[in-house]
Amino acid sequence: MTFAPLKNDRFLRALKREPVDMTPVWMMRQAGRYLPEYRATREKAGGFMDLCMNADLACEVTLQPLERYPLDAAILFSDILTIPDAMGLGLYFETGEGPRFRKVVRTAADVAALPIPDVESDLGYVMKAVSTIRRELNGRVPLIGFSGSPWTLATYMVEGGSSRDFRHLKAMAYEQPEVTHQLLDKLAQTVIAYLNAQIRHGAQAVQIFDTWGGALSAEAYKEFSLRYMKQIVDGLIRDHDGRPVPVILFTKNGGLWLESMVSTGCDALGLDWTINIGDARRQVGDRVALQGNMDPAVLYSSPASIRAEVKRILEDFGDHPGHIFNLGHGITPEVDPEHARVFIEAVHEFSAK
Amino acid sequence: MTFAPLKNDRFLRALKREPVDMTPVWMMRQAGRYLPEYRATREKAGGFMDLCMNADLACEVTLQPLERYPLDAAILFSDILTIPDAMGLGLYFETGEGPRFRKVVRTAADVAALPIPDVESDLGYVMKAVSTIRRELNGRVPLIGFSGSPWTLATYMVEGGSSRDFRHLKAMAYEQPEVTHQLLDKLAQTVIAYLNAQIRHGAQAVQIFDTWGGALSAEAYKEFSLRYMKQIVDGLIRDHDGRPVPVILFTKNGGLWLESMVSTGCDALGLDWTINIGDARRQVGDRVALQGNMDPAVLYSSPASIRAEVKRILEDFGDHPGHIFNLGHGITPEVDPEHARVFIEAVHEFSAK
Repeated sequence: MTFAPLKNDRFLRALKREPVDMTPVWMMRQAGRYLPEYRATREKAGGFMDLCMNADLACEVTLQPLERYPLDAAILFSDILTIPDAMGLGLYFETGEGPRFRKVVRTAADVAALPIPDVESDLGYVMKAVSTIRRELNGRVPLIGFSGSPWTLATYMVEGGSSRDFRHLKAMAYEQPEVTHQLLDKLAQTVIAYLNAQIRHGAQAVQIFDTWGGALSAEAYKEFSLRYMKQIVDGLIRDHDGRPVPVILFTKNGGLWLESMVSTGCDALGLDWTINIGDARRQVGDRVALQGNMDPAVLYSSPASIRAEVKRILEDFGDHPGHIFNLGHGITPEVDPEHARVFIEAVHEFSAK
Repeated sequence: MTFAPLKNDRFLRALKREPVDMTPVWMMRQAGRYLPEYRATREKAGGFMDLCMNADLACEVTLQPLERYPLDAAILFSDILTIPDAMGLGLYFETGEGPRFRKVVRTAADVAALPIPDVESDLGYVMKAVSTIRRELNGRVPLIGFSGSPWTLATYMVEGGSSRDFRHLKAMAYEQPEVTHQLLDKLAQTVIAYLNAQIRHGAQAVQIFDTWGGALSAEAYKEFSLRYMKQIVDGLIRDHDGRPVPVILFTKNGGLWLESMVSTGCDALGLDWTINIGDARRQVGDRVALQGNMDPAVLYSSPASIRAEVKRILEDFGDHPGHIFNLGHGITPEVDPEHARVFIEAVHEFSAK
């Protein structure tokens, strides 16, 4: 595959802590329900997974926010639960209920029976979406691929869907650590193959979403989440097509553990909003770039408040290379799209050299 | 009022960082749904608030876990939302829905119209429960009084109930900080009066539950939550009846902010499980006691795993005075009461001098 040369490489340069003309910005879940055009395409697709499985429609929604805003990166439109689905657990969505699985993984036998998917065939629809999006981007901005972390994927697989306290997986982790490690290792192997395939099909950077690692104790985080993210970082293609492929680690509520996250060898850490980004930068120094970290709820407030918070975060980060501006978590469905514009434009305006 | 002399002062001594024969232990929400006897009393009372408002029944459920387990403290059975209810917002509970308010607070006029309750009359039922429990405890263990933090109370008052993203209150905080400060100041004044009345009626220590302060950015936490907890600490009765009345500050997900929490002048910090208690102890040194910090989900695992985790936490804290063992959040309804026993007994067994 040959793709058009990249016109805007601000995001990739910042990930490598190289100087940029202004701070790059993108938003987690930027192709999402807050956009009326997204809701229209989703309506057209049928269900949420139909949208993920149709490369043309997945491409369409991926590009929608780029048509509206001067964003510096696109992110593959997909779901983190494609992997457990490809392992045969039967992902489905019930209206207003979030994701559910027909089969759950609770025993040593369940774990042993889990197949490791062939990512090129079983998850071929994701690869087709990646290459379609990369082609249609036509070099405008880089494309980010992603996966959930093994721990985060395991929470859904063991609980059978979303959970508040992760009781079954945590009980398994404390009571049968070896079974839990088998499960997490299978997931880590799959994530490595999955992200490497995304890279080969066109992803220019990858992010690991560890949405639920922050629900663990400090010790359990290292043993059950961080360890497998390190395994993934070690197994990833780090250079492709003559360019480095940066990897971003994002553990929500991981602000206490930055030092150990840096030690995985990743290129950048995603930060939620509970840590001051200046404090985070003082901790990690020049070892990694930082991505974040505005509270998405700020987008519910006035344009003036949004601009003030953007300015505050840029000032707290200070005049160093290696900042990618983002929200501290996904943009929420109720946000006014014009507020997202104010946010994105303010990042560029206040950071322009 | 004269009460019986205290037989077990392990908890109060640990809060003052004095030597103890073994580490004291209690559990947040120890009088709760995991206990069949609690469910029976609640059934008898009618609704949840009927239980809170009946001093004899509130006393009955407060004492239930002490009958089962060798706990070192009792905590007043009540709800954090008694204050907003006394401000006229009309608290009610819908089955499976959590707390709701008939009126919400969204505008400057709403805030201006909020009355500051007379805690002795409007919240007289709480004071009656406190003195009843203290009398019935008969000096067995100390009684803890409590309140929600102003920020935490405000989340329910502004959102109208539980919330995932606190969109209305956060929008208010960013857009109309002065209105938000008026609301939080009214709440802080009320909490001071409320906790001081609990102390006068028999509470021997008090805890401020800042359940949702951890959902704020580091900056917003200091401005909108911590500031008002400091105002409360400054306004509390710190000695009563010839004994100090220790105050414990618990911000869930506050592990990044221990230093600023210590600076309020409180006696102890409550920790959730995301921070290693040894790391926390190295940060705070001899300035405050620490309460915590086992993940409540460990109680879903086997007795052997529970005992191992208790031992690990005791060892991480190390051989210093000033540890009160607790869970990092409330015990959950699905826990086997026998697992709670294993937990409590393990704390005493492994820490006995």
